[in-house]
Amino acid sequence: MKSHLKMGGCWSLPLFLLLGLANATPALALEEQGNRAKNIILFIGDGVDAHQLTIARAYLYGQDGSLSFDQFDHQASARVRTVSDDDGTTPVYVPDSASTGSAIASGIVTSRGRIGTTAKTDRDVPTILEIAQAAGRRTGVVSTASITDATPAVFMAHTSVRFCQGPRDMDGTSAGLPGCPKDTRAEGGSGSIAEQIARAQVDVLLGGGTRYLSQRGEDGEIVLEQMTKGGYQLVKSAKELAAFTPNGRQRLLGLFGNSTLPTEWAGERGRFAEEVKLSEEGPIYPEPITCQPNPLFGKRPTLVEMTKKAIATLAHDGDRSEGFFLMVESASIDKQAHAMNPCGQIGETLALSDSVKVAMKFAQSEKDTLIIVTSDHGHAPQLIPYPSLFVAFAPDNPIPMYPPGRVALLEPAAGGVMAISYGTNAKYLEEHTGTAIPVFAQGPGAAAVKGLINQSDLFSIMKAALADQ
Amino acid sequence: MKSHLKMGGCWSLPLFLLLGLANATPALALEEQGNRAKNIILFIGDGVDAHQLTIARAYLYGQDGSLSFDQFDHQASARVRTVSDDDGTTPVYVPDSASTGSAIASGIVTSRGRIGTTAKTDRDVPTILEIAQAAGRRTGVVSTASITDATPAVFMAHTSVRFCQGPRDMDGTSAGLPGCPKDTRAEGGSGSIAEQIARAQVDVLLGGGTRYLSQRGEDGEIVLEQMTKGGYQLVKSAKELAAFTPNGRQRLLGLFGNSTLPTEWAGERGRFAEEVKLSEEGPIYPEPITCQPNPLFGKRPTLVEMTKKAIATLAHDGDRSEGFFLMVESASIDKQAHAMNPCGQIGETLALSDSVKVAMKFAQSEKDTLIIVTSDHGHAPQLIPYPSLFVAFAPDNPIPMYPPGRVALLEPAAGGVMAISYGTNAKYLEEHTGTAIPVFAQGPGAAAVKGLINQSDLFSIMKAALADQ
Repeated sequence: MKSHLKMGGCWSLPLFLLLGLANATPALALEEQGNRAKNIILFIGDGVDAHQLTIARAYLYGQDGSLSFDQFDHQASARVRTVSDDDGTTPVYVPDSASTGSAIASGIVTSRGRIGTTAKTDRDVPTILEIAQAAGRRTGVVSTASITDATPAVFMAHTSVRFCQGPRDMDGTSAGLPGCPKDTRAEGGSGSIAEQIARAQVDVLLGGGTRYLSQRGEDGEIVLEQMTKGGYQLVKSAKELAAFTPNGRQRLLGLFGNSTLPTEWAGERGRFAEEVKLSEEGPIYPEPITCQPNPLFGKRPTLVEMTKKAIATLAHDGDRSEGFFLMVESASIDKQAHAMNPCGQIGETLALSDSVKVAMKFAQSEKDTLIIVTSDHGHAPQLIPYPSLFVAFAPDNPIPMYPPGRVALLEPAAGGVMAISYGTNAKYLEEHTGTAIPVFAQGPGAAAVKGLINQSDLFSIMKAALADQ
Repeated sequence: MKSHLKMGGCWSLPLFLLLGLANATPALALEEQGNRAKNIILFIGDGVDAHQLTIARAYLYGQDGSLSFDQFDHQASARVRTVSDDDGTTPVYVPDSASTGSAIASGIVTSRGRIGTTAKTDRDVPTILEIAQAAGRRTGVVSTASITDATPAVFMAHTSVRFCQGPRDMDGTSAGLPGCPKDTRAEGGSGSIAEQIARAQVDVLLGGGTRYLSQRGEDGEIVLEQMTKGGYQLVKSAKELAAFTPNGRQRLLGLFGNSTLPTEWAGERGRFAEEVKLSEEGPIYPEPITCQPNPLFGKRPTLVEMTKKAIATLAHDGDRSEGFFLMVESASIDKQAHAMNPCGQIGETLALSDSVKVAMKFAQSEKDTLIIVTSDHGHAPQLIPYPSLFVAFAPDNPIPMYPPGRVALLEPAAGGVMAISYGTNAKYLEEHTGTAIPVFAQGPGAAAVKGLINQSDLFSIMKAALADQ
């Protein structure tokens, strides 16, 4: 382009502007080229919404605090869309991680529970990881859940039901959750999520899932053995992970637990939210919970350590020119919100924020790296007044005012008392919500993350960033 | 600037770039000049957060729907900060409209209940409306609440307690809420909010509040009579408002109700959320609510009509060159969230969206207009799964799963069923939440609305936009 710019050694400004050639100046040209990313690192904070970020930020860093991705140049709000599986079109207003993960990974609006398949018609839809692979990129999936859980699965597998994590789940799980008999290989399907992962040729797989990968697949072989025979090096602890050295195209499989990994933080004595008790003197809130390192965490790697090793492996010198797609999930932000465990949730949000820092540092030297930080769906926990606003303003109010669900009080280092209410389910597990979720992005292609978008647009944004390298 | 650009009739591109003169090209120069706004129109959707916007969007326009301000060029998330009045520093994690309104209007972090005064030390702090007035701009305040309520009050008055709306409230209200005896003029204060508004010389005042303005002030005069004698033309219905014609510097006072105005929408038979009933067959949710125009709305003007008249009056030809500051509040998004009335809340969010359209149309011809749409604090309503996710996935689950608070089902035109849960207060009124809130902006100075900001930054952004015209 540059060679066409000069006209007889003399520039005409109006013509220069009229032709739109201002875009050919060095600074602007860079921006345009910048839509193509060599590397994509996608972070999913499961169950994160504006409210959950506020809770973590305030507890960790005070009212003025910021998480690592809060100052990313490009931010958007994304509509979360799900439909009924009965007709494939009727809107469903609250999703699960399978339908929303499939929106991010494959750009579809599908029904709850589906892993990379269409609502009603059950067609497999290509995922961004598969597209990146086809374009010659290395690929990685990291999660604090089982790597067969919904969010990691949507990048590597296609099933009608998320619960078909291992071969034994194909007829339904012991918890009474549905299976997917039509997805068995005998019926012409692709088998369980674990079996599909074994064939997916993903270069780096780190998380939990020993329970599912230790099962015998339809072909009679233990899934995990199939993977180690096929070239995966298996590591099982932080120490083994640290010792792994990238070596050519050898694949890395880190399994650090049967299913979901323990959280990095927990409440003292494993405490979580409790009900407010009523007395003649008024409502009695549970005592504040102290957050501390989870004694059950063990010798596993942290999410930061997994993220570091995944990036180092995917980007190591020998393969550097290929580029990569990596998905990193902080899964237990969601799982601990379900479980009404604020310390667990906040610790996993910190792990997300710190893992994003690892990617940001990588992108400082590898500038053609697109980093996206997002969520799949909103969640139940709410930061409510303690005591009730109607008590704070009118202390003599004779009507007892208190949250009907469970509540946890926290005392952040910055002072004051945070009250977190769990008000969506009277029984054991809190519900997802249907709120729009936040998206943070930086790097080539990130400028499309702007205003109000659809969650499924993230697929198109990543796909466009991969193209035409 | 332009005259310095040409060097001997011939342009040197590298020099042109090196000197940073690219900024002097017509397109870019416009952008730079664009930080100064002749007019500022600030919309506050009281109680709006990402979740409340999702509920309104989905009900009104379906899962793909957008509100008028959703595609504004500049958007941010704003931290909401409040402190204890005891020491003026300990963080309080859930605010009210007074502390947050004071943050927007005066750039301060103060304690709940305060109207333009500092926590603990009780100093009056100048408001953006007062600064705009001092800079020669016309000013206006429009609200669907009483114009003496917290959000409008923070722009025009300074009291220690928001409940001192009228002279009779200075010793405390009949509802047991505190007064502010030290703010009486006898004690050297500025009197009730109503009395301060009467002296504030705001050019356009539209909303409710007859109850408070009809009281006799400390100087023995009825506040309202003082205002009409002092040059306000009083209108009391949509018809009278429509008939008002701007005339020089005559001030306009529209009072359309005693206090908060009725909402534009309501549930059929005034229905709102109800408790889920338990039966042997499982939880029984309340029947869906049908949203309809509120039969109690009467002959009042809508928020759109008030916004149109306010803009037309403030911008009318005779005074056009002055510019103006206008605040428009859709107050009952918050009040109907407290009251567990989803139809009321959604109708008022539609009113906000449509009123912003009026401003957007004005800004098409008056390009030096900064429009900011924001909120003061988050609120309780949540879009939850119906039925519970744990029933949807496991229909044979024997444990009854249902929300512990009240719930409302709605059937949007787009299909499906939305379930809205109110889970923060077991008794009469839902609570505010502490979530970060959204900000949408367009026009000169709007580029500072980006990423994660503080709510109090909105004051600085507006102040900067007013300066150096």
